Amino acid sequence: METMEGMTRTHHCGELRAQNEGQEVVVCGWVSHRRDHGGLIFIDLRDRSGLVQLVFAEDRIGADQFPKAESLRSEFVVAVRGKVSLRDKETINPNMDTGEIEIYAEELRILNKAMTPPFYIQDGIDVDENVRLKYRYLDLRRPEMQKNIMLRHRVAKLMRDYMDKHGFLEIETPMLTKSTPEGARDYLVPSRVNPGKFYALPQSPQIFKQLLMVAGYEKYFQIVRCFRDEDLRADRQPEFTQLDIEMSFVDQEYILTLMEGLMQTIFATIGEEVKTPFLRMTWDEAMERYGSDKPDIRFGMELMDISEYVKGSDFKVFKSVLDNGGQVKAIKVDGYANIPRRELDGLVEYAQRYGAKGLAWIQYTEKEIKSPFKKFYSEETFQKIKEATNAQTGDLLLVVADKPLVVAQALGELRLEMGRRRGLINENEYKFLWVVDFPMFEYDEENKRWKAMHHPFTAPRDEDVQYLLSDPGRVKAKAYDMVLNGVEVGGGSLRIYNSDTQEKVFEAIGLTPEQAHEKFGFMLDAFKYGTPPHGGLAFGLDRLIMLMAKRGSIRDVIPFPKTQSASCLMTQAPSEVDSKQLRELSIRTAVAPKKKAETK
Amino acid sequence: METMEGMTRTHHCGELRAQNEGQEVVVCGWVSHRRDHGGLIFIDLRDRSGLVQLVFAEDRIGADQFPKAESLRSEFVVAVRGKVSLRDKETINPNMDTGEIEIYAEELRILNKAMTPPFYIQDGIDVDENVRLKYRYLDLRRPEMQKNIMLRHRVAKLMRDYMDKHGFLEIETPMLTKSTPEGARDYLVPSRVNPGKFYALPQSPQIFKQLLMVAGYEKYFQIVRCFRDEDLRADRQPEFTQLDIEMSFVDQEYILTLMEGLMQTIFATIGEEVKTPFLRMTWDEAMERYGSDKPDIRFGMELMDISEYVKGSDFKVFKSVLDNGGQVKAIKVDGYANIPRRELDGLVEYAQRYGAKGLAWIQYTEKEIKSPFKKFYSEETFQKIKEATNAQTGDLLLVVADKPLVVAQALGELRLEMGRRRGLINENEYKFLWVVDFPMFEYDEENKRWKAMHHPFTAPRDEDVQYLLSDPGRVKAKAYDMVLNGVEVGGGSLRIYNSDTQEKVFEAIGLTPEQAHEKFGFMLDAFKYGTPPHGGLAFGLDRLIMLMAKRGSIRDVIPFPKTQSASCLMTQAPSEVDSKQLRELSIRTAVAPKKKAETK
Repeated sequence: METMEGMTRTHHCGELRAQNEGQEVVVCGWVSHRRDHGGLIFIDLRDRSGLVQLVFAEDRIGADQFPKAESLRSEFVVAVRGKVSLRDKETINPNMDTGEIEIYAEELRILNKAMTPPFYIQDGIDVDENVRLKYRYLDLRRPEMQKNIMLRHRVAKLMRDYMDKHGFLEIETPMLTKSTPEGARDYLVPSRVNPGKFYALPQSPQIFKQLLMVAGYEKYFQIVRCFRDEDLRADRQPEFTQLDIEMSFVDQEYILTLMEGLMQTIFATIGEEVKTPFLRMTWDEAMERYGSDKPDIRFGMELMDISEYVKGSDFKVFKSVLDNGGQVKAIKVDGYANIPRRELDGLVEYAQRYGAKGLAWIQYTEKEIKSPFKKFYSEETFQKIKEATNAQTGDLLLVVADKPLVVAQALGELRLEMGRRRGLINENEYKFLWVVDFPMFEYDEENKRWKAMHHPFTAPRDEDVQYLLSDPGRVKAKAYDMVLNGVEVGGGSLRIYNSDTQEKVFEAIGLTPEQAHEKFGFMLDAFKYGTPPHGGLAFGLDRLIMLMAKRGSIRDVIPFPKTQSASCLMTQAPSEVDSKQLRELSIRTAVAPKKKAETK
Repeated sequence: METMEGMTRTHHCGELRAQNEGQEVVVCGWVSHRRDHGGLIFIDLRDRSGLVQLVFAEDRIGADQFPKAESLRSEFVVAVRGKVSLRDKETINPNMDTGEIEIYAEELRILNKAMTPPFYIQDGIDVDENVRLKYRYLDLRRPEMQKNIMLRHRVAKLMRDYMDKHGFLEIETPMLTKSTPEGARDYLVPSRVNPGKFYALPQSPQIFKQLLMVAGYEKYFQIVRCFRDEDLRADRQPEFTQLDIEMSFVDQEYILTLMEGLMQTIFATIGEEVKTPFLRMTWDEAMERYGSDKPDIRFGMELMDISEYVKGSDFKVFKSVLDNGGQVKAIKVDGYANIPRRELDGLVEYAQRYGAKGLAWIQYTEKEIKSPFKKFYSEETFQKIKEATNAQTGDLLLVVADKPLVVAQALGELRLEMGRRRGLINENEYKFLWVVDFPMFEYDEENKRWKAMHHPFTAPRDEDVQYLLSDPGRVKAKAYDMVLNGVEVGGGSLRIYNSDTQEKVFEAIGLTPEQAHEKFGFMLDAFKYGTPPHGGLAFGLDRLIMLMAKRGSIRDVIPFPKTQSASCLMTQAPSEVDSKQLRELSIRTAVAPKKKAETK
């Protein structure tokens, strides 16, 4: 192994161009590819900026150094001094940024050797993800992964610049904090100094950012790690990063406009021109038209209510639904009247998976109208439905009848699925919108009580405050979500700063003043010392970068992610620890230790 | 409580000046001070930018609104529309940035009321820190605390800008990671999905940042939270923030120069012009001259070796020390020969606290030379010492005889103490230096083995590699600390990237290859796949901001710090948790629960 002593890198591999011709340069990096041809050795050298071709010729580098070049293998780390030459016309590589030039090596230092990696260090490899995660340091060496991580850095930087420019202060909040009974499951950290007591890792800095408003900081932000001990879905990680924001003395419109500008700024870095203002849609309308509070508006196929055409018949399914305050709605799949029966059956199952009792349909084929409820309605009814839904011959209607929320969920999911299957979604398009006026409460069937949809510090709309106790279900909140391509990328609300309203909200969710104090005591105290009107929101950074990088998994934009069993395959975390460590923390595991049995 | 509807803040309080005269403005903030005079109400309104004086006159604001103004009390939150007026000459307040103007209120909204705070919201209060910590949201409202937090934001922003400008990528590393047996005590996090297993919160991202070098990112940084479960000293917190840096293909000089530029950049924000390059001093020299590896070079009073003058006498203390390879050194306290006996006795204790067996002295008073070892030496010897130490009549020498490390520690601490007592330290001066060439190993008397002074991945100097096994004590490392005013603000090293050297280092600290693999397995594996030469360092952000803000405690620059018993007095973290939470985590506390006794 050699050192770089006396050699200073002058250029990165990927930045050399024809205009560097004749320059003496020093480049460093990893051997990506080697080819021997006509007594010459060609190496593609890779660093984080890209590739450049090195040429080793015995007469240039000298007979003493040439054998060293012959020993080069994939992933060896080298530093090379050489001269930039234009390639012959016929050897120019137009697929390579540096394809017009090559470097004739005059000095080679082998800084380190490398074993053969378990997979190729290149894009688009087809390797089991567990292997990639075990050798993450090699996976992260692949150019497409480096691009993701560099994009993440760039976006975080732009976010900070933007927030700073608008007067926001990045303020750090604690990681070792208090376990709160609301929300998701906490990660706990036993305290050694306070035996029997535990810290919790924060699910979000919500409490602290509101206290910073009480403390008069006015504009806060933080790019911050948060933790939730949930069972992991494909799109979740035990720890995740959010851009967390809170501000005082502003209204909702100020917040939304500010965040639109932020999106404009960060998407410009991937060449996307984001138009503002974003579409704003109430929660009611989103549920009505798209069956979702995070509608993907890159395509139509909206939900249409056909209740009025199917009511008053003997068809029991529709009748009982409509008699009980339900609805019958449909989506129209253009030109798909001849959907295979087998696929239809699959869609029935699909709808059931999302809570519908069943799925009906109308196929307006060239020959006939096919529908499982055909015999219950006249031809005229089917024509009316055809007109009302603007269906053409050849189109398919998928129909769900149920309670409104069930119809929305099932048809909303079917809409997305059919949009994908029919190729209606332009994957190169970014469509933002705000969903506003969320319900303040949702009914918790299990515990037979109303609970806050967002959190109990969310402010209700002024005009709805009067219904907080008499009709909680109709109260809308000053809450807003930013939705991008059907994904909720951020959300927040204005907060309650009036203690009368706060008390009513607690009462609405069934808390006595004593219980409210027990759960939120120090925060309620703080609010009595001069709390400004305030509000904020948070963005999921991982998901946002995933969308910007057009990846299917957030694991591709997190340097060291965990698996679905919350493990790190590289470091083997979590792991067993010394019994001495547990003793110091005054805890025991309820699991029999593998090696040394410990008798207290 | 009123809303801001229809009122949009136009200015911050602290930014209004004489040139705003006649403008209609809307300001928001907290009532800082109220004074009633001649039928007028004067309010100092405070926001994060500063103070401005509001004037409420019944004829301007109207008889209907005036009573509202009369109801204002300290810390009420208000929004006020009004007109900027120049103050009469005699009422101009030169101590206030906005002292030339006042705002005649024309509309007042009381956005929130406030209870009387437990302490004044102003600078320089004399309040028990526990009260400040309990009501941290009020403590943080005080202008001096806001200044610290804003400085912290600004410095972190400048750091990120600087690192980005130099091609560094901010890359996030995991918080839920693996417990490592080396280093300080880990905070552990029980895993629910993997019963009996634990994550550890990172003491630093050391392993991950080196793996990012293996992964080819070349220039990494992160402002990152780290955790150490140590018994807390005044200057420590369970969680702290560091600027963490690592880079490839560079030499030590590149790293030091880059970091000097960073300091220049961030200190400019407090108006300090930092000169570069910094002084560089070897560890040997720092210990020799200052008795410390983090010398405060704002004053002299260097350690001087007087062994040669006191050797060969019958004075047993010096004789036995010198015969056993020890040394006799002194510091000179100018003009303090007449130090009170009582203070001298205190200094003896002080020296003993830092490991010295005792403390001797020479007082060159006008009348005589006083010294506890006067009778063992001739007058001539004392004159020689006087000349050698450049002492004048009236000066005091404090003398310690012991093993070199003990002499250094005791005299080094005495030097600092006397520097403080004699007022030799200019508190307005910032003096940086690098301490370089640290010893690679230190001898662990307890375990009778050499251990890595830094960590075992630190590279030894090339010329010392040959002594790794034969004479570990003489091996110096490519390690460096940045020292500011006697505080270590940052430190790091070049790392080993050669596996032969790495194996020798493990052998030197007594690890078999098997043990090395058990402890550092995946990292050693990673290093085999093409590791570039790399190195880095980390800065303690809390301490750096503390020095920049001229505060005595890092708690004054951390928004929500913990006490010395690692508690948060505001949230009461850590706290007891539901037994259900512990069951889910498969752990039990070894402490009897207070309320419900749990029978497994």
